[in-house]
Amino acid sequence: MRLARIAHPGGTDYAVLDGDTAHLVADPFAGRTARRPERTGRSVPLAEVRLLAPVAPRTVVGMAHNTGPEDRRKPPQAFLKAPRSVIGPGAAIPVPDAVGRVDAEAELAVVLAESPAGHTAHTVHRAVFGWTVADDVTARELQAADPLWTAAKSRTGFTPLGPWVETGYGIGDMADVGVRLTLDGRRLRGASTAHLARSVAEVLVYLGGFLPLGPGDVVLTGAPGETAELHPGGVAEAEVAGLGTLTNPVTAASPVREPPAVREPYAADPNLTGGRP
Amino acid sequence: MRLARIAHPGGTDYAVLDGDTAHLVADPFAGRTARRPERTGRSVPLAEVRLLAPVAPRTVVGMAHNTGPEDRRKPPQAFLKAPRSVIGPGAAIPVPDAVGRVDAEAELAVVLAESPAGHTAHTVHRAVFGWTVADDVTARELQAADPLWTAAKSRTGFTPLGPWVETGYGIGDMADVGVRLTLDGRRLRGASTAHLARSVAEVLVYLGGFLPLGPGDVVLTGAPGETAELHPGGVAEAEVAGLGTLTNPVTAASPVREPPAVREPYAADPNLTGGRP
Repeated sequence: MRLARIAHPGGTDYAVLDGDTAHLVADPFAGRTARRPERTGRSVPLAEVRLLAPVAPRTVVGMAHNTGPEDRRKPPQAFLKAPRSVIGPGAAIPVPDAVGRVDAEAELAVVLAESPAGHTAHTVHRAVFGWTVADDVTARELQAADPLWTAAKSRTGFTPLGPWVETGYGIGDMADVGVRLTLDGRRLRGASTAHLARSVAEVLVYLGGFLPLGPGDVVLTGAPGETAELHPGGVAEAEVAGLGTLTNPVTAASPVREPPAVREPYAADPNLTGGRP
Repeated sequence: MRLARIAHPGGTDYAVLDGDTAHLVADPFAGRTARRPERTGRSVPLAEVRLLAPVAPRTVVGMAHNTGPEDRRKPPQAFLKAPRSVIGPGAAIPVPDAVGRVDAEAELAVVLAESPAGHTAHTVHRAVFGWTVADDVTARELQAADPLWTAAKSRTGFTPLGPWVETGYGIGDMADVGVRLTLDGRRLRGASTAHLARSVAEVLVYLGGFLPLGPGDVVLTGAPGETAELHPGGVAEAEVAGLGTLTNPVTAASPVREPPAVREPYAADPNLTGGRP
């Protein structure tokens, strides 16, 4: 099943894409655990639909140095990306002019159904809702200058996700699939997820050991293939076999513009508990 | 005005606290810019109220090395904390037993009305909705071992916020207020926000230059006073003059428990835009 978030003449909704039709569904991430999308009975022709980022994650977490088998010698390390850095397919990646080299990284992304906490490598597949494609945009020189990576990875528009969430595959199905970046029409050297230093199951068990996560959160699994520099005026295409291609134009970062507000549904957060005043 | 998020017999709501009464209000963070809380006409006696974390931020960002004037020699550096690591007043801070020393840090926290992007130090006060107290819990040895700080700062329960958001103060009012930590009844050496290496206005302008932020997001401004180690069985009290005291018991981290789901309203996210399929 292909789950998308769409803007359409009637508003913004989650939808299941089927042929030429987007079938609107209730927010599958509104509870403590993601639910199977329930159709509302309403549908929209795909021609009237604009795809948004397929989820509105509260947490976006990536794995550092998970790009090849040699990285297994290092301990696992996670980084956070700002959730508001997420953009959808077709949205522009703004490249600032004063930060040096900005790279694209094509990655397999996990969309969580629930926290992986408490799961083992054998049971953690239950925490997976589905899969999408990520472009983990990174300002290389800022990354070298600032070991916290916040300014390097969490800039506006630096986390394209999409085009949709594919729910039909298990962890095993994604253990050996091709990941490739195409920049300005030039196909770079791809690689299989089998070359990631740590597998998806290992990554999820590691994160579940300390990081509070929940439904709709997104885990970037690392870029096994070639990465390359983005240039304004170009186009970045990140592809994962079986999931589709995430395409984003690249622009020069412009002064801040404020897009119109869209009210978003939001996943429940069981962590926000408290006491009496 | 004191804005809180409360659990009460009728559900979970934002509320304005006034004497013995919590006046329920519409979610002030649902639009592109926070709005003045509008009373719904319903109210709950404070005795029937449990305070939750006063906001449900999409982004929690802190400033590294902003604790004293000497830190001004270093370039500014920001770190992200996992939004689901936020807990409210009275909720337990779980200290894991295998990560070494875990410290509490009392800090002044800014709750944003809107992104500070495009503002100068003279206009950035418009991006401030209000103020709360934060305890930036940090596993010191993990912080030393992992320069990304994710495992050190984003663990479950590591970001207590509260007890409420005070909206009546401007940036100038908070430029020289006392910040103090009290652990297990022992008052540690406090310090004024005037000792922060960079002021609130400087911090917001810095973050607005690259980080996508929005209404309800939280900025931790740095710990000017003494910090100290948490021990299970103890109590951490973080206090900012004029804002109140954020009190959290400290427990040994226990196996994962899943609290009941609470459906949260969620601020609009103008960044999640996209293209046609």
